[in-house]
Order: sequence, then structure tokens, then C-alpha cells
Amino acid sequence: MTNHHTPKPLRPSTLSRKVGQRPGTLSLPETALPPRLFLMSYSQESFLEQECASYTALQEALAANPNLNHWIDLRGYSDLGLLEKLRDDFQIHPLQMEDVLNDYQRPKVEEDSGRLFIVSRMITFNDKHRLEDRQLSMFTGPNYVLTLQSDYVDCLEALRERLRIGKGSIRKRPISYLMYAVQDTITDYYFPAMARIGEYAEELEDCLFDNPSRSLLSQILDLKREVVKVRRIVWPERDKINELMRMEDDLVPDELEIYFKDVYDHTIQLMDLVDNYKEMTSSLSDLYLSNVSHRMNEVMKVLTIISTIFIPLSFIVGLYGMNFSRENPRGGINPLNMPELYHPYGYLTLLVVMALVVTGMVYYFYRKGWLRSN
Amino acid sequence: MTNHHTPKPLRPSTLSRKVGQRPGTLSLPETALPPRLFLMSYSQESFLEQECASYTALQEALAANPNLNHWIDLRGYSDLGLLEKLRDDFQIHPLQMEDVLNDYQRPKVEEDSGRLFIVSRMITFNDKHRLEDRQLSMFTGPNYVLTLQSDYVDCLEALRERLRIGKGSIRKRPISYLMYAVQDTITDYYFPAMARIGEYAEELEDCLFDNPSRSLLSQILDLKREVVKVRRIVWPERDKINELMRMEDDLVPDELEIYFKDVYDHTIQLMDLVDNYKEMTSSLSDLYLSNVSHRMNEVMKVLTIISTIFIPLSFIVGLYGMNFSRENPRGGINPLNMPELYHPYGYLTLLVVMALVVTGMVYYFYRKGWLRSN
Amino acid sequence: MTNHHTPKPLRPSTLSRKVGQRPGTLSLPETALPPRLFLMSYSQESFLEQECASYTALQEALAANPNLNHWIDLRGYSDLGLLEKLRDDFQIHPLQMEDVLNDYQRPKVEEDSGRLFIVSRMITFNDKHRLEDRQLSMFTGPNYVLTLQSDYVDCLEALRERLRIGKGSIRKRPISYLMYAVQDTITDYYFPAMARIGEYAEELEDCLFDNPSRSLLSQILDLKREVVKVRRIVWPERDKINELMRMEDDLVPDELEIYFKDVYDHTIQLMDLVDNYKEMTSSLSDLYLSNVSHRMNEVMKVLTIISTIFIPLSFIVGLYGMNFSRENPRGGINPLNMPELYHPYGYLTLLVVMALVVTGMVYYFYRKGWLRSN
Amino acid sequence: MTNHHTPKPLRPSTLSRKVGQRPGTLSLPETALPPRLFLMSYSQESFLEQECASYTALQEALAANPNLNHWIDLRGYSDLGLLEKLRDDFQIHPLQMEDVLNDYQRPKVEEDSGRLFIVSRMITFNDKHRLEDRQLSMFTGPNYVLTLQSDYVDCLEALRERLRIGKGSIRKRPISYLMYAVQDTITDYYFPAMARIGEYAEELEDCLFDNPSRSLLSQILDLKREVVKVRRIVWPERDKINELMRMEDDLVPDELEIYFKDVYDHTIQLMDLVDNYKEMTSSLSDLYLSNVSHRMNEVMKVLTIISTIFIPLSFIVGLYGMNFSRENPRGGINPLNMPELYHPYGYLTLLVVMALVVTGMVYYFYRKGWLRSN
Amino acid sequence: MTNHHTPKPLRPSTLSRKVGQRPGTLSLPETALPPRLFLMSYSQESFLEQECASYTALQEALAANPNLNHWIDLRGYSDLGLLEKLRDDFQIHPLQMEDVLNDYQRPKVEEDSGRLFIVSRMITFNDKHRLEDRQLSMFTGPNYVLTLQSDYVDCLEALRERLRIGKGSIRKRPISYLMYAVQDTITDYYFPAMARIGEYAEELEDCLFDNPSRSLLSQILDLKREVVKVRRIVWPERDKINELMRMEDDLVPDELEIYFKDVYDHTIQLMDLVDNYKEMTSSLSDLYLSNVSHRMNEVMKVLTIISTIFIPLSFIVGLYGMNFSRENPRGGINPLNMPELYHPYGYLTLLVVMALVVTGMVYYFYRKGWLRSN
Repeated sequence: MTNHHTPKPLRPSTLSRKVGQRPGTLSLPETALPPRLFLMSYSQESFLEQECASYTALQEALAANPNLNHWIDLRGYSDLGLLEKLRDDFQIHPLQMEDVLNDYQRPKVEEDSGRLFIVSRMITFNDKHRLEDRQLSMFTGPNYVLTLQSDYVDCLEALRERLRIGKGSIRKRPISYLMYAVQDTITDYYFPAMARIGEYAEELEDCLFDNPSRSLLSQILDLKREVVKVRRIVWPERDKINELMRMEDDLVPDELEIYFKDVYDHTIQLMDLVDNYKEMTSSLSDLYLSNVSHRMNEVMKVLTIISTIFIPLSFIVGLYGMNFSRENPRGGINPLNMPELYHPYGYLTLLVVMALVVTGMVYYFYRKGWLRSN
Repeated sequence: MTNHHTPKPLRPSTLSRKVGQRPGTLSLPETALPPRLFLMSYSQESFLEQECASYTALQEALAANPNLNHWIDLRGYSDLGLLEKLRDDFQIHPLQMEDVLNDYQRPKVEEDSGRLFIVSRMITFNDKHRLEDRQLSMFTGPNYVLTLQSDYVDCLEALRERLRIGKGSIRKRPISYLMYAVQDTITDYYFPAMARIGEYAEELEDCLFDNPSRSLLSQILDLKREVVKVRRIVWPERDKINELMRMEDDLVPDELEIYFKDVYDHTIQLMDLVDNYKEMTSSLSDLYLSNVSHRMNEVMKVLTIISTIFIPLSFIVGLYGMNFSRENPRGGINPLNMPELYHPYGYLTLLVVMALVVTGMVYYFYRKGWLRSN
Repeated sequence: MTNHHTPKPLRPSTLSRKVGQRPGTLSLPETALPPRLFLMSYSQESFLEQECASYTALQEALAANPNLNHWIDLRGYSDLGLLEKLRDDFQIHPLQMEDVLNDYQRPKVEEDSGRLFIVSRMITFNDKHRLEDRQLSMFTGPNYVLTLQSDYVDCLEALRERLRIGKGSIRKRPISYLMYAVQDTITDYYFPAMARIGEYAEELEDCLFDNPSRSLLSQILDLKREVVKVRRIVWPERDKINELMRMEDDLVPDELEIYFKDVYDHTIQLMDLVDNYKEMTSSLSDLYLSNVSHRMNEVMKVLTIISTIFIPLSFIVGLYGMNFSRENPRGGINPLNMPELYHPYGYLTLLVVMALVVTGMVYYFYRKGWLRSN
Repeated sequence: MTNHHTPKPLRPSTLSRKVGQRPGTLSLPETALPPRLFLMSYSQESFLEQECASYTALQEALAANPNLNHWIDLRGYSDLGLLEKLRDDFQIHPLQMEDVLNDYQRPKVEEDSGRLFIVSRMITFNDKHRLEDRQLSMFTGPNYVLTLQSDYVDCLEALRERLRIGKGSIRKRPISYLMYAVQDTITDYYFPAMARIGEYAEELEDCLFDNPSRSLLSQILDLKREVVKVRRIVWPERDKINELMRMEDDLVPDELEIYFKDVYDHTIQLMDLVDNYKEMTSSLSDLYLSNVSHRMNEVMKVLTIISTIFIPLSFIVGLYGMNFSRENPRGGINPLNMPELYHPYGYLTLLVVMALVVTGMVYYFYRKGWLRSN
Repeated sequence: MTNHHTPKPLRPSTLSRKVGQRPGTLSLPETALPPRLFLMSYSQESFLEQECASYTALQEALAANPNLNHWIDLRGYSDLGLLEKLRDDFQIHPLQMEDVLNDYQRPKVEEDSGRLFIVSRMITFNDKHRLEDRQLSMFTGPNYVLTLQSDYVDCLEALRERLRIGKGSIRKRPISYLMYAVQDTITDYYFPAMARIGEYAEELEDCLFDNPSRSLLSQILDLKREVVKVRRIVWPERDKINELMRMEDDLVPDELEIYFKDVYDHTIQLMDLVDNYKEMTSSLSDLYLSNVSHRMNEVMKVLTIISTIFIPLSFIVGLYGMNFSRENPRGGINPLNMPELYHPYGYLTLLVVMALVVTGMVYYFYRKGWLRSN
């Protein structure tokens, strides 16, 4: 029987490089998708969006608009040559490129000669009640932001729409504001996932009261572990935002500080939510165990009451099933051997006695409160 | 069955802004109340109080008394235009105004070019034994304090009364003393809520000993979570007060430091109280589980004693219900087949034997201490 | 049923001031005792002790001996006027005087223009196994120490005796040594209370093995909470002593540092003791629960053994209580219908068989180890 | 019975030196292997590898190639004389050499006049589900790295292969890069061990649902302890890497910093994995206990249902087994004594009644949900 | 019943001084032993050892060899006069001498005008499975080390032997090396005690599987508390060594730093061991509780199976024990009243039916896996 729902722990297979291999070696998971290259180029006045058919097309587009800000967005990692070209042209350290390909990295920010390398995680809580989290890697440069992700779908579409329609100040701001906007959008994206976790927790709670099945505890403990995983992602996310907030003016302009402070507050709210859910799952598992033992007690009580009522009755009827003989084998009678059996009203009297016994016991149990279902 | 009492966790819907929306976008909850604008203007000698019918009225009142200290108090957020005017006229950062509208913010203080932005939470423990906490946002300026809250009723009425009658030194002091007084009043207001939590905890404890119903554990665990929520509010409140206490002279005058130290001591007392209640709820749930298992044991004991007394008796009466025949089918008699049945005192002897068996067992159980209710 | 022993938590009523009242407002609990004013004036050569009938008498006594060190000791707070005079004459901050009257303050030390304000707690463990702790407030000045307490009895009598008889160096030392001596005496006074807690814990432990009553767990959990309360008092006490130890020379002379280091070591020993008791109560509650379940198991075992022995016997005697007829209603006999009943030794054989069944089962249970009481 | 699987705790016998012995005394475990000395000498152009037959051969080989980088690798410690020569020639402190021989040392790095002493642990998770960890000690010098280990087999073979084929930049780099490469390889080597732990945890989880044997809890708790041991090794490993990362340029060149940062990230991923496994084992033991109690409940339910159905039936048949006599000994009949027995359809009616009783009870239990297996 | 094994907690009676007594007052426990004074005087060339009959003899011996290093060793405290002389002649602070006499002090080091006062604890794990720890107090001076202990036997004999035979460098080194050597020896002495704790833990574990008696849990919890006590001693011991390691050159020569680092590593290994044992005792108590409940389940299973098999059989035999009459009192027969009883093969058929019922039930239980002992 393996159809239980225990989540797989983070598997160490997340380290893409083999033991002893040269650091910085790029190796691809077999499931890597073919790359798609998107480019958005913008300034306050102009906006260009295209999907580049090849890396050469990207290079040409960048060269054609040296005064615009560029958001280069690579999705899908199956082309190792493309990744190596990116690495070389955008002066990315081989170890950082390795981090991009590894599918598990904690949120972090690294600074390297005026450029930032930022790892973020986009989480969703899927229909199987498992946490999915995918990595978004970002490199910043003087007039570009380069994002890389392994999948085609992400949570940044609303942000792209803001760029397209040019609403608000986003196109007027320097490129570092785009970097902030990506961080902000990703952080906001945690909240719907948290809402789904909360709904699922309430669903489990309803099950707990309605129909506590055997697998429920397993589900509760699974949810607890998912919640702990979120915590382990939000914690370094918070540290990352804090680090960005405190960076020097040339890396993150001072005017962005208050914006990052806002994101930082959101991550703290996330921590509060996570802690709330953690306690909620803890009290759910306590309640489950208490409920199970309560049901067991109900069953025991029924047994006790029925047994305790019938056992004395069974004794009484057994008593008058004895064969003590009125007739003495040596002749004559034994008048003291069960004379009740020969009394005209013996049977009726006994029935009344048994009814009284039952009544007395039921009254006793009622007084003890055992007949009330609590 | 959903009539259980588990508190809803903090829902991520507390983030008013949508994912990907421009930061600083103001969006209102549907339940926002129409705004009411109150103004108190005072100096040592004079005192004016009015409800301004419109924002223009407020502007005029402020312009008319440039030498007075003003407490501007906005309650109800449904007028977005008014909020935007306030934001622009009082140089409030859009992100801070967004924080004002979000209904969940941790207590915090932010400093921005000599003005303070302070978020506080006013808690009550309602009749359904749930924690309610509402937010009070405050902005300070050179001669005004601007407070904003979503509801019409707050806990500051006693403070307003002090301003009105001019008792004590409050009207003689600079505007920062008013900021302190608001903080102090809010902190003091935590204590009655704590008292209600304490009373409810004692109520639950009485239930525990009188009538431990099935839902009691659920109520105890709920209370525990409410207590933990208070902790999560008091903790940053304490940090906020500490930060205010250590601020530079131009933001918080040095003479206020000893006052904030006093508020700080109160928040530490609150932490002690919260920790006390947390332990109390923990031992309540331990006691509940122990009580439930104790009751189960009582039931088991009754079963054991009754069964154990009657089972041997039932065997005995069954024994003499056997039909071993005194008469040999081949003629003659079987004198060894149950001669007891034919003895004149057989029945009486057996009754005595059974009485002795019962007496012996009861004595044994008494010696074992099983008849005492402990 | 409310005769259980759960300690009342720290009630928020400990905040004497009402919500919104002016900070520094003095308000008295109804149970305040009438004030008594004691004065000890001493130098190396002279010693004067008196109870001052009025505040004026105190003023005169102080004025008469400007070169002596004074220990002014106020016990009982019911005279608000007296407290206000003290506050004004000894330059006590209104908030500090408010702290004096509040009956719950954590141990702390505050420095204000060269004078110290020290709050200490004197604990006892009373006959109802509850922690009592009363507050001693102390103000130091150039040549006096002013102590205030709400009750007439305290733990400083031995120290007063040392002053009276002038043994040791206490009268030769500066006034700050008296402040130290008070702190030292109060800390030493924790140890007998701890000893009583330890004795009570051992008493409970003996109960656990002798007679684990239903209320025992409640008592153990209560003791645990009392121990945690001590911890919450000793912790800030330690911090306070540490702060005193590190104070500058003009507040606490350097020569006193080694003395405060000694007191500090005592507070650390207290922490060790408290942690010890905490673990002891934890293992007591574990043992209680294990014992209760052990007793339940014993009861179950008796039931199992008695039932399991008699159930097969009851079957056997039931078997031979059946009425299968040897006589065929159509005439003739049914020789196969229970011929055992007609055998001359049928009954005796059956008794032997039943004895063997019992012996076999008892042997089986013995081998299983169920007959041994473990 | 000692065939249980509890892991032996770290035994204090790990301290090779006797109590009171001179510090720095070298003493060998009895199981020490004969030493084997390996030497790899390399520069960008050349590469030499040999096993030195004796210490003299090593000295000659080193003297012959003063311009190459050397990796001296001693495996097996049984020759105390050889160790002492190494200690003296390579200026190793006696206490450090003692650390080399002790089989338990936490990962650490020590700096001594420009040379580093680094202790690492190589872990494997063996077939008996026990953690094995062996120590690798490393000393660095101007143009050599000296590694010492007690066993012949290690995890560095892939690294040696990289040196042999000269792939990548390893032979072009200074000797400190070799030190880094060893650290990196050892850290990477933790991941397969973690993967095996994860597989074993899943195996135990499958057992939990399929066939929860009595020893399973013991195995789960053992695994938990092994996981905690890994944590206790990874924690100082992380600190060690952190220390190396922050070392000054002459000890660890600045260009290596980003490489050590990468190793540091891996140790943090390891911590995440370890924490994951710790929670997983915790929920496994919770699930085990819940499962055991669930099985007990199932058994109880069967007993309850069968007993509760048959106990009333047994009473009924006992009732009609009574011997109340229709014939009055004084002549005449007792028409009220069990007339049912003489009714032509008495028996059939009773069978129908009993069938109805059974049906009613089964329906009741079905409605209660006790017949469903949950 | 008081023959249980719960260890006495640290009793506050450890504070030898009475409440309110003058600090520095020396008071002796009643059990103090008569003092014995040992002196070892050594230089690289010479070595003298003697037991001084009196304090005067010690003074003379010291005066006679002003150029030697001296180890003065006092064992037994019953002579208060001697202690006071020591205090005065060696400039020991009264509070430190009080610490010497108090039998419980945490390990610590104090510095006072170039002299060190070091408190260490020597632990043993005795035959009653209790931790014994005795205090060794040490004062250092320019050319002496003064150690004081309350008992005659200590763990330093091996160190004395090293001094006597002059092996190693101990006699060539300055007096501070002797101080180090004492610390080192005491720390090494913790390991055999830890080994005994480990053996006892394994012993308890074997009991757990072989014969889990009622007192076993009590013993496990006692061991846990002893382990926690060791932790509470090792923790400040570690801090003490750390403090010594970082002391300035004139107090602890820099050349000793690497030696203290080595001792420090040992204390960290001790912490690891202690944590290991703590987890081991935790899982032991979990296993005990699980085992107890497992045994209970086994008993329940036997009851269930035996009852469930016999209850239907008892019903069947009861059925055919009913007295439904074939003969109609009004004459004629009732052919439907239990015709089975009159069938020639009725009895045999019933025996076969009952055998089938038993077989069916046993097969059902076998299929359910209840007959296997897990």
C-alpha cells in the first residue's frame, strides 16, 4: 500500500553536479525544456516587445537600442550552448550559472563588481496539496535585467502588463526599479498560495469533526511539513530583501529603500501567517488524536453498558437453569432445593426482579452521566 | 457539522493590493465606513474641538490657528479622494498610506525626514472569545498629530477628556507628548483585554472539572492560539516602544524617555502575562486529556469489577445446569453423576458458596483499592 | 466544583492606574495598610533607631544628624499625602512613585541624576503551595537609603540586627554598602523558599508512588507554573544585579563589584535550582501519566485473566446443559445424543478436564509473565 | 535479547589519550592499519604519481621536484615512528597530531604561522542504516597539501582523476585551490549519504502503512538519532567553511572566496535537508503511535460488536433454559410459569425474535458507522 | 513506599551562609574532614614532596625553597583557623574563601590583581547511578598553585606521578603550566564518567527489551536528569576554559593558548556526548511508553480472540439448553419446538457446526493478521 500522501522530502538529487566534478560544470536535468528568449525594451516614451528566435537575434536587438532598458527573459534550459554564451557575454560567474541550473537554491543575493545575482522562489500550493516552488534567477546590469527560469509559465504577467501599458511610473524609473518590481511581485505572489494553504487547513478541520478517517492524521502532518517548508523559503527571502534594502546607493538607489522596506514588511507578515498555520496544524493533530480516543471511548461505553446490564441477568437466568432436584433419590422430597421453581408466580416474580435490576442499573449509569453523549 | 469554534487564521486577504499591482495603489475594502474628521486644537490656554464637515473645513481650521497644537483624527476610509488629499497635503508616502488601509500591519515606527509614522494595534477580547484587533495609524508633524482608524469607536476617549478639561500637564507639553499619550493609552488598554482572557481561561478550567465536554479541548486550543496571537502583537509593540525610547532628541525629546521607559515596562508586564496564559492553556489541555482518560478508566473499572464478580458465578450456575444423568440408561444409577443436585441442602449450600465467592472478590478489590473513587 | 488548586495567573489588575489616566497618578489599592515610618541612623561610632510618629518627625531626625547615614523605611501605603511629600522631598519621579505603588513590577534598576531606583521582589512559598512575592522599592541618595514596602513584615530583620550590634564592617562602610547589603539579603532569602519548593516536590513525588489521586496531576502542573513564575522573577533579578555590578564608580563604588559578583553567582545558582525543579516537575507529570496508565493495565490484566479462564469453562458446562434427547420421540433411543451424560464417571471426568484446562491456561499466562506484578 | 538496532552513542573511548597523560602523547588504536604513502606532484605541464615505499622515498621525491605542487596522502596510522617524523618535518604541533589520531574530532580549521590545519569528516550511510563517519585531516604548506586518514578508501578518487587528466584549471591554480577542491569534494560527498537516508526514511514509511512491526518505532527513533548526528557534523562543517571563506588573502586567496561561498551554500542546503529529515522522522513516529492505537481500536471494535450482539442473545436462551415448573408439587399446574415453553410455535417465535434483535443491533452499529473500516 | 530512585535535586542548603549573615563569613558543614596539607616543590632539576604536619611546617618549607615552584594541596576543611590563615597569607578575598567552602559552585574563573581563582568540578557516576560532583578550588600565585578540596581522594594522582618522575616537560615549564595541567586532567576525567553513563544507558535499554518493569521509566527519567546535570556543569566549564584561553599574556602565557584550545575542544566533545545521551534517554522513554502500550495490546488481543471464539459457541449451547416442550400440556405434541433435540444425529451435527464456526473465526483472525505476534 503506497497510495499515501507523504510529500517527498527535498531530495539531494537537487545537486546537479556529480561528486568530484569540476565546480562550475553545467549539467542539465533530462526534463529541461527548449529555451525561449523574450525581450522587452522600454524607456519613458517607447516600448518594444519580441520573442527572439535565436541568441543572435537577441544580440542584434540589444545593439539596436543601446539607450533603452532591457528585460531579457530566458525560459527553458535545454540548450547548453545558449547558456554558455549568456554566461560569457553577461560576465556571469560559472558557479552562479551552476546555481541557476540547480533546481534548489535558497533565496539569496550576491554582489559581484556592481552587478547583482538574485535567486527567488515562486511558490504555489497545488491541487494535490503539495507545495511547488520554482526558481527565478535574476542578473542585473547597467541597463538590463536578465531573468532565467526553467518553465514557461511564471507569476510576472501582471508586471509585464504594467510595462506594456506604461501605467504608473515604472517606465520612467531606472532599471533597478524593474528589479524591485520583480521582487515585489514575487513576494505578493506568496499570499494566494498562503490563502490556499489556509483553505485546505480549514477543509481538514471540517473533516476532523465530520469524518476523521485513518489517513487524516497523515494529511495533517503532511500539511505541517509543507508549512514548515514555506517557512524555510520565506525566512531567507526575508533576509535577502533585508540585504537588498541595506545595499549601497550605487547597487540599490536610496529612493528604493522605502519600497524594499514595504516588501520586507510583507515578508514579515508572511512569517506571521506561516507561524499561524504551523500552530493551526499542531492543534489539528492534537484534536485528531483526542477525537480518535474519544470515539474509542464511546465504543467502550456502549460495550460496558450493554455488558454490565446483561451479565447479572445472565447469572440470574443461569441460576434458575440449575437442576437441583426436588426429589430425593432415596425417596421423599428436598423442599429446600429451589422451591422458587415450583411457586405459581415464580416466573413472573423473576421477570419483575430482572426489570428492577435493569432499571436500577440504567438509573445508576444515567446518574453517572454515561448515557449522555458528550 | 461546522458549528465548532476554531478561529479563522489571519487570512492573506489582508493584503489589499492585488498581485502585480503598482505599489502604493490605494484600494478600499467594501466594508469601509464613510469618513468622519475630528479636530482638537489646543494650547496651554485655549482649547477648540470640532467635527469638520469637509476637508476644506479642516484646512480652514488649521490655517486659522497656526500657533495651536492639532490632533486631527480621521475615522472611516470610504472616501478615497479625501485619503489622497491627506496623503499629498501631509507629505505621506504612498506606501505608508497603503499600510494605513491594509487592515493587518504589525506595530511599527518609521521615520521619514523628521516625521514619524507609527502603527499601533488596539485589541479587545470579544464575547465569542475571539481576539479583535484594530489598527491605529499615526503621523506626527511639527504641530500636529494625525491619527487614522477604520472604525468610529476607539479606546482614546479618556485621553480626549484629559485634553478637554486640561487636567495635568498635557496641554502645556509639546505635540510629541500627545504622541506619547496616545501610545501610553493604547498600551494600558491591553490590560482589560488580558483580564478578560484570564477570566475566560478560569471559566474553561471550571468546565474542565465540572463537565468536560467534547468541544472543550477545541476551546482550550483556540484560546491558546488567541494568546499566541496577542504575543505576536505585543512583541513588535515592545520593539516599537523601545525604538521610540531610543530616538534622537529632535524626534522624541529626551524628557519623554522616562515616559516611554514606563510604557516599555508595561509591555514587558504584558509579555509576562501572555506567557502565563500560554502556560495556563498548556496545562489546561494536559489536564483535559488526563481527565478524559481518567473517566475512561472509571468506566473500565466498573466493567471489570462487575464482570469479574459475575463471570465465576455464571460458571457455577452453569455447572449445576448440566444434565449428567443419575439414571444409567442400562438400568441402575450413576451415583457419582452430580450427587450434589440431590442433596437436601445442595441448593442452599451453593447459595452460601456463591455469597462467599462474591465477598472474597469484593474484599480483594477493596484491598487493591479499586473500589475507592480516586 | 471549584475547590481545585490552580493558581490564579498574574491578574492585569496589577496595573493600578486606570486606562487613559495621567501617567504618574498615584492610586491606592483598598487594602493598603496605614504607614509606619522607621529610621536607622548610623556611623562607625553611633547608632540611632526610632519609629517616627509623623513625617515631620522624620524630617527633624534627618536634619538633626546630617553626618550620619540613614535608612528610612516606610511600610504601608495608605497615606497618599505622605507618599507625595516623600516624592517631592526626595526628588522621586512621579512614574517611579507609581511603580512603587503598583504591586507587580519586575526587578529592575533605574539611574536618575546620580540616584538609583531599585525594585526587588521578596518571595515566599506559602502553606497552600503558592508563591507569594512582595515588592521592595529602594531609592538611594548621598547619605540615605529609602525603602518602601506595602507590608509590615519583611526579610531584612537579620540585616537590621547586624546594623544594631555593629558587627562586621557594615557601619564603617559608605551608604552604598547598605544598598548592597539589602540586595544580598533579599537574594539569600530566595534559598529557603526554593528549599520549600523542593520539599513540596518530593512530597508530591511520594504521593505519586503511594497514592496517585486524581488531583495530583493538577497539583504537579500547578507547582510547575509556580516554578516558572520564580524563573520569571529570578531572571530579571540576575540582570539587575549584573547591571549594578557594571555601574560606574560614582553610582556603585568599584570595591563593591566583587560583592555584587558574589550576589550574581547566587542568582545563577538560583537559576540552576529553578531549572532543576522545572525538569523535576516535568518528569513527575510524565511519571504520573505513566502510573495512571500502568494501573489501568493492571486492571485490564485481571479482567483478561479471569475472563479468559472462565469463558471456556462456561462453554463446557453450557455444552452439557443441552437437552439433546436420548429418547427418540418415535420410540427407541438416540445413542449418539450426548452419551457422556449417561456414563457413570461422566461428571467426574468432566471436572478433571476442566481442572486441566484451568491448569493449562494458568501455566500459559505464567509463561507469558502476566501473573507477575511488574 | 540484544538484537535490537539502537546505535551506539559516541563512546568517550574516542579520547585516545589516558586521563592524566601528557598532552600530545601519540597513542594508536589497536586496529590501526599499516601506513601507505601516496604522492602526486603536478604543475600546469607535468604530473607525477607514485606510492612511496618508505618515508625516505617521499623525502627524495619532494627534494627532486622543488617547483611542483605536492599532494602527500598518508593512509593508515600503525607506524608511530613515521607519524613522528611527519610531525617534526612538517612542523606539526603535537596537539594537532594527537587530533589526527583521535577518531572523533568536530570539523574545524586552525591557523598556525601561515599554515592551516583542517579537520573534515567523510560520512556514509551504511547497509545497517548506521552513519559511518571517518576523519580526514589536512595540513597545508607553501607548495604541498598533506592529508592523513586512517583507512585506505576515501571519497577523493574523482578529484585525483581530475588531477591526472589535467582537465579544467586545477593544475594551473596555486596549491590553495587543491585545498579548496578537497573541501568541495568532501561536501559534495554528503549528498549521496543524505539521499540514502531519504530512501531509508521512505522505506520505513512504507513499512509503517504496510506492516507496522514492533521494532519499527525503534528503527524510526534510531534514524532520528542518526539524522541528529549528521546535523551535529554539518553544523561545525558550515562554520569551518565560513571561517575559511573569511580568511585573509595570504592564507586563502581572495579569488577562492566565491568558490568557498559556493561550498557554504551547499552546507546550508545540507542543513535544510537534515532539518527536513528530522521533521520527517518526527512525523513518522507520531504516525506509528497513531497507527498502533488505530489497530488496537479496530480489534476493540470487533470485540465490542460480537460481544454486544451475542450477550443479549445468550441472556434470552438462558431465560428459556430456566426450570420453572409447570407442575405444582402440591398437585395442579402453575399456568403462569413459562407458558411460552409449551406453545406450539414458541421456539420458532423465539428464533424470529432473536433474528430481529440481531438485525436491529447491526443496523444501529451501521448507523453509528462502526461497521465501516475507516 | 519510598524506595524509588529519584535523585534529590540540588538542595538550596548548598548555601552555607545563613540569610542576612555578613558576606564572607566562613561556616563549615558538620561533615567536614580534618585538614591534610600536601606540598610538592619542583624545578627542572629537583623535586620535593611532603605532607606538612602543620601550617607552620608549610610556611617553613615554602620559605626554604623560594626558587622552586610549589603545589600546595589542602584536603579537608574542618580547621577554620587554618583556612583563615591561608586566606590572610595568600591574599584570598573573603568571598572567594566562602566560595571554596560552599559545596556547590559553577565552574568559573576570577581574576584579582594578577592572581587567578579557578573553581572546577570533578564528576563521577557512582554505583547507584547518581552523579557525584566535588569541587576543586585553585588559586594561582607567582610561584605556587594552591588547590583546596573537601575530600581526601581526587582525580589528580596521575598528574602527581608525572611530576614525581619528571617525564615530559612539566617540570621545565612555568607554574602556569601546572595550572593548565590540573584543568586538563580534570577535563579528561569527565570522559570515564561519561562512559559509565553510556554503559548504564545501554543497560537500561537492554532492560527495556527484556523486562520492562514498572520502575524502569522512573530510572530512565532519573538518568535523563543526571545527564542534564552534567550538561549544566560542562557548559560553564567550557566557558571557563574559553575565558582562560583568551586571557592576557601575563595571566596565561600565550604559549599555553594552544593547550587550552585543546582542552576547549574536549569540552565541546563532552557537550556532544551529553547531547547524545540526552537524546538517547528521550528515545528510551518514548520506547518504554510504546512498549508498555504494546504489551497491553497483546493482552487485549488474547482476550478478544478467546472471547470472540467462545461467545458464539456459548450462545449455541445455550440455545439447545432451552426447555421448549415437545409435549403440549393440553395433550398432543408440539413438533416445531426444537425438533433438533430429538434427531438421532442432532448432537453430532451440532459439534460439527461448532467446529466449523471455530475454524471460520480462526481463519478470519489469521487473515486479519491477529494471530501473528508482531
